[in-house]
Amino acid sequence: MSGRFRTECRRIIFQSTRWDEKAFDVILILAILLSVALVMWESVPSIAPQTRQLLYILEWIITGLFTAEYILRLYVSDKPARYSRSFFGVVDLLAILPTYIDLLIPGAHYLMLLRVLRVLRIFRVLKLAKYIGEANTLMRAMRSSARKIAVFIFAVLILVLILGSLMYLIEGAEYGFTSIPKSVYWAIVTLTTVGYGDISPQTPLGQFVASIIMIIGYGIIAVPTAIVTAEMTHPATPSSDSDPICPACGWESHDHDATYCKVCGDKLPTPASSTEVR
Amino acid sequence: MSGRFRTECRRIIFQSTRWDEKAFDVILILAILLSVALVMWESVPSIAPQTRQLLYILEWIITGLFTAEYILRLYVSDKPARYSRSFFGVVDLLAILPTYIDLLIPGAHYLMLLRVLRVLRIFRVLKLAKYIGEANTLMRAMRSSARKIAVFIFAVLILVLILGSLMYLIEGAEYGFTSIPKSVYWAIVTLTTVGYGDISPQTPLGQFVASIIMIIGYGIIAVPTAIVTAEMTHPATPSSDSDPICPACGWESHDHDATYCKVCGDKLPTPASSTEVR
Amino acid sequence: MSGRFRTECRRIIFQSTRWDEKAFDVILILAILLSVALVMWESVPSIAPQTRQLLYILEWIITGLFTAEYILRLYVSDKPARYSRSFFGVVDLLAILPTYIDLLIPGAHYLMLLRVLRVLRIFRVLKLAKYIGEANTLMRAMRSSARKIAVFIFAVLILVLILGSLMYLIEGAEYGFTSIPKSVYWAIVTLTTVGYGDISPQTPLGQFVASIIMIIGYGIIAVPTAIVTAEMTHPATPSSDSDPICPACGWESHDHDATYCKVCGDKLPTPASSTEVR
Amino acid sequence: MSGRFRTECRRIIFQSTRWDEKAFDVILILAILLSVALVMWESVPSIAPQTRQLLYILEWIITGLFTAEYILRLYVSDKPARYSRSFFGVVDLLAILPTYIDLLIPGAHYLMLLRVLRVLRIFRVLKLAKYIGEANTLMRAMRSSARKIAVFIFAVLILVLILGSLMYLIEGAEYGFTSIPKSVYWAIVTLTTVGYGDISPQTPLGQFVASIIMIIGYGIIAVPTAIVTAEMTHPATPSSDSDPICPACGWESHDHDATYCKVCGDKLPTPASSTEVR
Repeated sequence: MSGRFRTECRRIIFQSTRWDEKAFDVILILAILLSVALVMWESVPSIAPQTRQLLYILEWIITGLFTAEYILRLYVSDKPARYSRSFFGVVDLLAILPTYIDLLIPGAHYLMLLRVLRVLRIFRVLKLAKYIGEANTLMRAMRSSARKIAVFIFAVLILVLILGSLMYLIEGAEYGFTSIPKSVYWAIVTLTTVGYGDISPQTPLGQFVASIIMIIGYGIIAVPTAIVTAEMTHPATPSSDSDPICPACGWESHDHDATYCKVCGDKLPTPASSTEVR
Repeated sequence: MSGRFRTECRRIIFQSTRWDEKAFDVILILAILLSVALVMWESVPSIAPQTRQLLYILEWIITGLFTAEYILRLYVSDKPARYSRSFFGVVDLLAILPTYIDLLIPGAHYLMLLRVLRVLRIFRVLKLAKYIGEANTLMRAMRSSARKIAVFIFAVLILVLILGSLMYLIEGAEYGFTSIPKSVYWAIVTLTTVGYGDISPQTPLGQFVASIIMIIGYGIIAVPTAIVTAEMTHPATPSSDSDPICPACGWESHDHDATYCKVCGDKLPTPASSTEVR
Repeated sequence: MSGRFRTECRRIIFQSTRWDEKAFDVILILAILLSVALVMWESVPSIAPQTRQLLYILEWIITGLFTAEYILRLYVSDKPARYSRSFFGVVDLLAILPTYIDLLIPGAHYLMLLRVLRVLRIFRVLKLAKYIGEANTLMRAMRSSARKIAVFIFAVLILVLILGSLMYLIEGAEYGFTSIPKSVYWAIVTLTTVGYGDISPQTPLGQFVASIIMIIGYGIIAVPTAIVTAEMTHPATPSSDSDPICPACGWESHDHDATYCKVCGDKLPTPASSTEVR
Repeated sequence: MSGRFRTECRRIIFQSTRWDEKAFDVILILAILLSVALVMWESVPSIAPQTRQLLYILEWIITGLFTAEYILRLYVSDKPARYSRSFFGVVDLLAILPTYIDLLIPGAHYLMLLRVLRVLRIFRVLKLAKYIGEANTLMRAMRSSARKIAVFIFAVLILVLILGSLMYLIEGAEYGFTSIPKSVYWAIVTLTTVGYGDISPQTPLGQFVASIIMIIGYGIIAVPTAIVTAEMTHPATPSSDSDPICPACGWESHDHDATYCKVCGDKLPTPASSTEVR
């Protein structure tokens, strides 16, 4: 009987085809969204005491639900210890802990952030949905261009460091560039085209250098876009060994549809499964 | 006679080749633009009373024209009930209703928006024009990448929620981050590189986290661009199982709609549901 | 003798291979840049009277040079009337007129802009240079995607109109949204991610709608980029008539490298000079 | 013995496979980062005198390390004179000079920038790492599209000059557009979508023209992105005369480096200098 119940629970938790499995997912998502909405609402200073009372009660209901779900997941799992140490296991625990800790240490401010992290639990539900394929495509494109993007961000950081220091010399403390870290912050605000305007160059020379930074920022935004686009349009092969190599001359960068070596004219071995090296 | 008149009206309304058909379209577009210009002009506080009088008269002339056109469309249509419930039927009705309602409930402020929606009627006229092909290409590219963009926007929203809450903890109410919703609003303003500057981080740690948000925002703008570009360069097919391989010559990169090998002319195995791998 | 002189002048003006031809181009570019720098400098309020005197003299020297060049071009041209009515003929005349008009109507403010337009003359000189090929590639890509971009900008304008009006209703005059035109201006500032911050939403609902506008703006910036990128990566053929049409089944959208019809397997007429239709 | 020591030093400095070679690289990177952090920290006005004392001592330790390394590099090099005149030789010297100069001319402000330039030394270490391949791909894509980007930036500068002058005429000094250079600075801030908001148009006509500038800026950001993306997706060859056409089978889309037809294996006419038309 207990085994039967456990199997049923497991099915409802981990699958999402039948109506009760779908209902579980939908209720979980709604509970997560409500939970995050509660945290956001609570932080608004101008709410009435009775509303705050209501939010407090709702918070405990949500926490009760999440606690029941956490215990259920531990009960259903074949390896509860492994689940509790996994990424989603930790997120699930973090989703319920803050409310209990709040009883011991009332008003601990930083617990708010832990409660916002509950939103990460939504990914677990979506994992079962059809959107995961699309997310995978995006992740793959970003992962395979991660190194190029790292080089790009590194170059941007060095650029921002040098330009920020230069502006600190040019403008100086009287126009808001009070220190190099602050000037570097300004350079990032400018290069990324955010442009708050809390600090802005006032001297003609400063405005001239700022103009150059802006045009650089406007131009180099092309680089990460080009990297990811190139990756999504023509995904690189996991290993570029599968490219046909000419047995006669050893030339490597043939097209995927080449039958003959374009350098020596010799016939290529097997044209199957290859991509342009990039 | 009446049938003759109805056929003529229908021709003038729905086609756009002859001079009178084109004239109808042009007059309609001008009336729509004038109508929207009137709404905008009326909202300016500093206009003189006699100008306001003129705007009022012009508004009624436009409404009269639109009413006549609406009745004509009902008369011409074979299924008037279906037309009146269609998207453009509703827009056409919304284009004339506000002015009449204004007689009953004078000064209803929200009617302004309904009158601005008249601009949507312009799409109906352009539907007949040559730009529709280009619009279709754009729509198709956006529709087929809609799911990837949804995943991206969802990820951005979660990022913004966590970063906004973090900034609420770091900066706090004294620097304008008065609540989590406001901090999330600030995070969106920063991540999208809009950067109003109405709220901006003041503490060194806050500026450091803000810099990271900006660089993330600057980097991930590449993602939607890459998605749409990849879609426009190589439009995908609904399903993407596997490419048909020619059994005779082994050619692999056939289109999804190919029945015969484009290299050797041999019949392909199963032409259904295939696409270039992406 | 005069004919000899005319031929020499024409060679120096229109070619740029020999040293004297190159020297003419370089002097012209320097004169144009100096001329524009003069206009910019003159507009600075804080310059000393004696500097202003110097700028005035320099302005007359430049104008003398440009006048001599204009007369020379008229003299050298086979059809002076046609040259004077051409685009660059008008620009050349506009480059010298403002200084003379200034003698008759002193201090005419708008003449400044005419003098700045001299910078356009630089394109004439660069026309002879090697950069023209690159400029042509860019121009071709932009021209062939002009219609798609027009549709996109039209859609953006309608979006901005509706969202601007909505924000006028939500925020109202007390938070700076004094009229619909001003709200539309704000919507453009926000959607294009410029974000001055001179007007920014203050009510929670306004900030929520603004967040949606920002995310839309952040997302749809992908569209023009995707259009131009697709155009530059795979330029469309001037006429898409050159695509091979299957003589047996009439199928049109074959690849440029197809030898056999992919629908009926019939041999295609001539595979030469064709591109994927896009 | 000395030769043995020199070989060892050279190995440790220039290679990065064994543990001691890797340790040298890691220590160097840490020293550079610490050194730059010191400069940034020193510039903060609010640090305590005893902290400043500590920073001063740390600065001298770092300078000692860098001086030792510089002498070692001179000693190890086969051509010390050539090294000292090379780019990294100059950067290495600039990394140590400022601290010594500071003894002679105390408090020279501009030396700060020279010390920040030490961050460039990090590139030398990374040169040995695996990221260099990715950096090369990026550099190649940017270098081969440099001319197109130059044409684009030149067009942007002319646009900004004309639009800035126009706004100077429209808005005038009373709304912050005090001179043409300042107006051009504003036009750059707007076109690049930075949008500080320190200067923003106040008149209706000015806001209208500004809206046009913003939409232009929003649209033409596509251009550099498209250039770099096209370059990364299909890298071009230096010269682009015409594609080789196979005399045997008429195949047209050969690569620029193809000597033999990839479809029929026949020799191509002239393999030199060809590329895909783009």
